[in-house]
Amino acid sequence: MAGMTIGLVLDLFGTFFFAMSGCILAARRKFDIIGSLFLGTLAGLGGGIIRDLILGTVPSAFNNPLYFVPPVLAALLVFFLFHSVQRFQRPLLIFDAGGLALFCITGTVKALSLGMNPVASALLGLTTAVGGGVLRDVVANRVPQLFNPDDLYAVPAMLGSALVVVLWSAGIYGTAAAMCVAAVVFGLRVVSLHYG
Amino acid sequence: MAGMTIGLVLDLFGTFFFAMSGCILAARRKFDIIGSLFLGTLAGLGGGIIRDLILGTVPSAFNNPLYFVPPVLAALLVFFLFHSVQRFQRPLLIFDAGGLALFCITGTVKALSLGMNPVASALLGLTTAVGGGVLRDVVANRVPQLFNPDDLYAVPAMLGSALVVVLWSAGIYGTAAAMCVAAVVFGLRVVSLHYG
Amino acid sequence: MAGMTIGLVLDLFGTFFFAMSGCILAARRKFDIIGSLFLGTLAGLGGGIIRDLILGTVPSAFNNPLYFVPPVLAALLVFFLFHSVQRFQRPLLIFDAGGLALFCITGTVKALSLGMNPVASALLGLTTAVGGGVLRDVVANRVPQLFNPDDLYAVPAMLGSALVVVLWSAGIYGTAAAMCVAAVVFGLRVVSLHYG
Repeated sequence: MAGMTIGLVLDLFGTFFFAMSGCILAARRKFDIIGSLFLGTLAGLGGGIIRDLILGTVPSAFNNPLYFVPPVLAALLVFFLFHSVQRFQRPLLIFDAGGLALFCITGTVKALSLGMNPVASALLGLTTAVGGGVLRDVVANRVPQLFNPDDLYAVPAMLGSALVVVLWSAGIYGTAAAMCVAAVVFGLRVVSLHYG
Repeated sequence: MAGMTIGLVLDLFGTFFFAMSGCILAARRKFDIIGSLFLGTLAGLGGGIIRDLILGTVPSAFNNPLYFVPPVLAALLVFFLFHSVQRFQRPLLIFDAGGLALFCITGTVKALSLGMNPVASALLGLTTAVGGGVLRDVVANRVPQLFNPDDLYAVPAMLGSALVVVLWSAGIYGTAAAMCVAAVVFGLRVVSLHYG
Repeated sequence: MAGMTIGLVLDLFGTFFFAMSGCILAARRKFDIIGSLFLGTLAGLGGGIIRDLILGTVPSAFNNPLYFVPPVLAALLVFFLFHSVQRFQRPLLIFDAGGLALFCITGTVKALSLGMNPVASALLGLTTAVGGGVLRDVVANRVPQLFNPDDLYAVPAMLGSALVVVLWSAGIYGTAAAMCVAAVVFGLRVVSLHYG
């Protein structure tokens, strides 16, 4: 139960981070607030919906209306705070990194707890982590950040998903372990951005 | 049973309207008739397929071959009637508005009748309504109409989905109510186009 | 059992062919090897995943880790062999044709064997065949090859799917029949490329 709660909290934060990245991209593209809300929702919920469709369960976002709170918050925040800011590339990437770090964990854990094999679980965690960002970029008609050869986008998430599988199999996955993995993935991603 | 029939009829008309928008876009892009058939099919059936995947049911289009009739009709109509027309923007948007008006209703009703909660049902109705158009635009490599800041694309469909939830909960949803909601959504969308 | 094995072998070869097309496109776009691996995986597995989601089964790729071997192979091959090649258009299209020829068969057969009606089965076979290529092109931000009016992309796959339905219904579908259909589809596609 406590594990579920932690999972939900991490998932909602991940949703918020990706939603921020979507809303910031929408602001750069001069979309209005409704467009921002859509792109943020797609970025925040898209990866988890793909994961849940593959797992054959009703997507969590449609089971629990709480999941729509982070995108609404993100759209309002970006609309009121970032509206006149000119250079959004850095915050977009930082929020995206936060979502990546959390979703590679929650996606892998959900797959493992539904009984998928370790390889498929790690791949589903990775799909969750990169799915929302790819949908965001494809719908906004740009080549996904994932394919930018100048920085390591997917490698930290691959490592994170693999780490979760190992920790879970060893029976030592828990809140503390999740936090450590998230910090490692986020750190690697930010370092990669810095040197990219 | 009559409700099912009305639902099917509205769904087929919505499919036809979105399919027309897809085929017209294909003609503007100089796709051949097969490309037109594909883009029309994607626009007409895409939103409903996404809805049904999330609902965990076999997509209606694959249960009932009737659903492939409207895209075929649309491809033939556009091929023979609109082939030499130069300016397609207005008819594309009008057909798109018709599909939007019908799909926000049929999508919401399908979700409600499968027992989804009201919030999720309205959001699935909206997803049905905007899904086909977004897929159409993304696959034709343009920024979705949904993100055009100069007109209100999603707001009429949001309103329509919400209205259906209210009417359904109040127990007064029926053919007449559906027609009224469709007229309101279509009217708002066309007014928005006029002033956009 | 032997049928299953043949199906699996054809599916893995189809996956490899489409994965090659994705990795070659990635090389043309100067993506790094991780981007190449992603685009190859999407091209190779995307069509089958869409098919399986519509069929309501866990996607084969997530049931059987073998499916990830062809994309890894393709990414390595393209990275080490094709890295410095300047003109990739022709091999990309040839591999794509190979995937198309195999997937219209395996997709249709899977749908038939899960009890879908003949029309839906042929359409799902077609979806499997064109799905991966469309996802590949959309994610790499170009108009899908499917819509190129200068060559017949989908027609050979439509014919192949229809042939499989006929052979299956007549009770004479088997390895030899599958090979003949694949040869016909591949041949038609290559002839179309030659005269396109």
